[in-house]
Amino acid sequence: MTKKSFSRRGFMGSAAMGAAGVSFGSSSSAAAATAFDPVPLERPTSIWDLPTPALLVDEVALEHNLDKMTRFYRSKPAELRPHGKTHKCPIIANKQLERGAIGICSAKVSEAEVMVDAGIESVLITSPVVTPDKIARVVALAKRSLEVAVVVDQAHNVRDYGDAAGAAGVTLKLVVGLDMFGRTGIAMGQPAIDLVATIDKTPHVTFAGLQAYAGHLQHINGWETRNQQSVEAMTRAVETKAAIEKAGFPVPVLTGGGTGTYNMDSEVEGITDVQVGSYLFMDVNYRNIGGKTSAVYDDFRPSLLVLTTAISQPRAGRVTVDAGYKAVAADHEPPALYDIDGVSYGWGGDEHGILQFRNPSRRIEVGDKVLLIASHCDPTVNLYDHFHPYRDEKVTELWPIAARGRSQ
Amino acid sequence: MTKKSFSRRGFMGSAAMGAAGVSFGSSSSAAAATAFDPVPLERPTSIWDLPTPALLVDEVALEHNLDKMTRFYRSKPAELRPHGKTHKCPIIANKQLERGAIGICSAKVSEAEVMVDAGIESVLITSPVVTPDKIARVVALAKRSLEVAVVVDQAHNVRDYGDAAGAAGVTLKLVVGLDMFGRTGIAMGQPAIDLVATIDKTPHVTFAGLQAYAGHLQHINGWETRNQQSVEAMTRAVETKAAIEKAGFPVPVLTGGGTGTYNMDSEVEGITDVQVGSYLFMDVNYRNIGGKTSAVYDDFRPSLLVLTTAISQPRAGRVTVDAGYKAVAADHEPPALYDIDGVSYGWGGDEHGILQFRNPSRRIEVGDKVLLIASHCDPTVNLYDHFHPYRDEKVTELWPIAARGRSQ
Repeated sequence: MTKKSFSRRGFMGSAAMGAAGVSFGSSSSAAAATAFDPVPLERPTSIWDLPTPALLVDEVALEHNLDKMTRFYRSKPAELRPHGKTHKCPIIANKQLERGAIGICSAKVSEAEVMVDAGIESVLITSPVVTPDKIARVVALAKRSLEVAVVVDQAHNVRDYGDAAGAAGVTLKLVVGLDMFGRTGIAMGQPAIDLVATIDKTPHVTFAGLQAYAGHLQHINGWETRNQQSVEAMTRAVETKAAIEKAGFPVPVLTGGGTGTYNMDSEVEGITDVQVGSYLFMDVNYRNIGGKTSAVYDDFRPSLLVLTTAISQPRAGRVTVDAGYKAVAADHEPPALYDIDGVSYGWGGDEHGILQFRNPSRRIEVGDKVLLIASHCDPTVNLYDHFHPYRDEKVTELWPIAARGRSQ
Repeated sequence: MTKKSFSRRGFMGSAAMGAAGVSFGSSSSAAAATAFDPVPLERPTSIWDLPTPALLVDEVALEHNLDKMTRFYRSKPAELRPHGKTHKCPIIANKQLERGAIGICSAKVSEAEVMVDAGIESVLITSPVVTPDKIARVVALAKRSLEVAVVVDQAHNVRDYGDAAGAAGVTLKLVVGLDMFGRTGIAMGQPAIDLVATIDKTPHVTFAGLQAYAGHLQHINGWETRNQQSVEAMTRAVETKAAIEKAGFPVPVLTGGGTGTYNMDSEVEGITDVQVGSYLFMDVNYRNIGGKTSAVYDDFRPSLLVLTTAISQPRAGRVTVDAGYKAVAADHEPPALYDIDGVSYGWGGDEHGILQFRNPSRRIEVGDKVLLIASHCDPTVNLYDHFHPYRDEKVTELWPIAARGRSQ
């Protein structure tokens, strides 16, 4: 099997500042300049002196995770195409690219714009884009980088892209999304073949490959069950790939997979690259699903932490902290204490959490700061403007979360 | 009963741009300028042409809600001190102040800084602030506006404020928070009296009143149950107020209450002002609790809507939209369709939602845009940089959510 990507990685660390995406109507008045580069602090600051809630990244754990995934895939036929929706941060995207990732995924057009603005060339937009304004934005990105690609799952959408790309004088790469769990994608088998044929005969677009993202499998509890279902699902995608090739259309890319199935996707022949994201940070949700040899999924270390302060203790046996729904994502489990046992976090509303003591391994008093492992990493990152990366408990710079809020 | 407030409202609409709060270490490099004023669009834009997901505000419904609450309290002894954590927007705060609100509440110091930067003078910080850096920030705000006040619930905290205010040469207003539901606050009765006495004898701080926020009661289902428990809880707070006065300390303010109990708090003699917030926007959570005479709590109209686009239809009977956890708060119920019956929204992950059709009152096809009533208004607002206010389906300006992300 040959390794395929849309491109080598783009030029790095350039474009310190740039226009922050396309707005509507009066775009210039609505758009704000976005910073991509690290923001140095005047002096190193202890994490314990940060105003809370603050979003921290343990750089040692982050690099462990980056390196471990890189090493794991070095001996595998597939490549890494990490998902930028997790970090929304060109600085971290470049850490992935430096280690050999073949490109970055973006969930939305506005997120992809930030990555391209920051100088990243190979960006795959992983969700369909269907309105004329956004199709024009995708085409505008393709004019800036030939290595931009977008997922499609409808013939009408292919024709719209062809028209827009033709008008703009560019050729756009389209990746056919397969329906893996009823969220997006076209049915596998003949419908997928037909859509590839439509792309093939449509001017100004090219068929760049298939996407088979099995989002429903990433959080299945128990490695064995997850493995069985994942291999089954991805094998069906590989069969569709073969059927498309048999119909006369080469399939250079079959992209999919995620953190929950990274060591299953790696074993399925035919998958060309995996869209891992959460492995960078890990979170409570992922830790709970179980690993290959452990009850806690600890293949990667928790590196994304929320620092919070105990601000009140109205009753015994508990203390109230200053991080609630606006500081930690609340879609699934609550966050967990990072380095204190015998204490659980309970939701306390928009601005508060309640730490309930059972048998705490450390006293927590009003004024104390504690570290939480993020509940769900992606939407937690999206609540903050900056990461506070730290080593030896010291922060020396901030990393702008440049695509924070870019959900369009 | 005399009406009491910390101040008349501040000067309005001033301070178009200002420093965005205090940062740490190298504050100047980390802080960004914040815009407060409306951002005009070059031309009016139909809401149906906005890139999605977009946060919309129906201005007619918003004004209805503002005016209805204003009228309701005009004949009541209590005043309105609306909570700014709901909107995080000085433009909307000024709409409340223009209608006679006596001040604005802020949940956090950084949020209060935005309001003071925008020219609002009377700001009550409703949650304890305990670390030295933030105590300094509160004192700095008090130097800028004598009508800034902050809630305390610990004697140690009172002494810290006294020291900081003394060093800064300012006198700071402290409001004693009462423990209503175990989140923050001091126990009612003697402990509260003792804390007031501590304030009274501490230099550079003054006792400005009591806060009795019954957050646990706001979402109780059924008006009668809610009313009974609310009156009971607030009556206990009024008794503590009387006991403090009997001990020799005048209590100019007893602030509390919220949208779920606005027409209960109004009937309790002794409450001086209510901290209503969600009445502006309403949301699915509040609509579900039931009103005095209706199953749906419809005293106020839904004005906060999320516009989303149908982007894929992999299977019959449903369609996938581009708004997920990053576009609508996911702490409680999902959002609901605004003007289409027979369709429900189900979570589809960080970036997606699934609209499930039962018997839709309108067809929804890929490419169509639909309006969602926000699930939970406060944390949904916190996901966006701007409101898109509209009348007759046209947007002419954006309102910056200037305190978005200010959870510190």
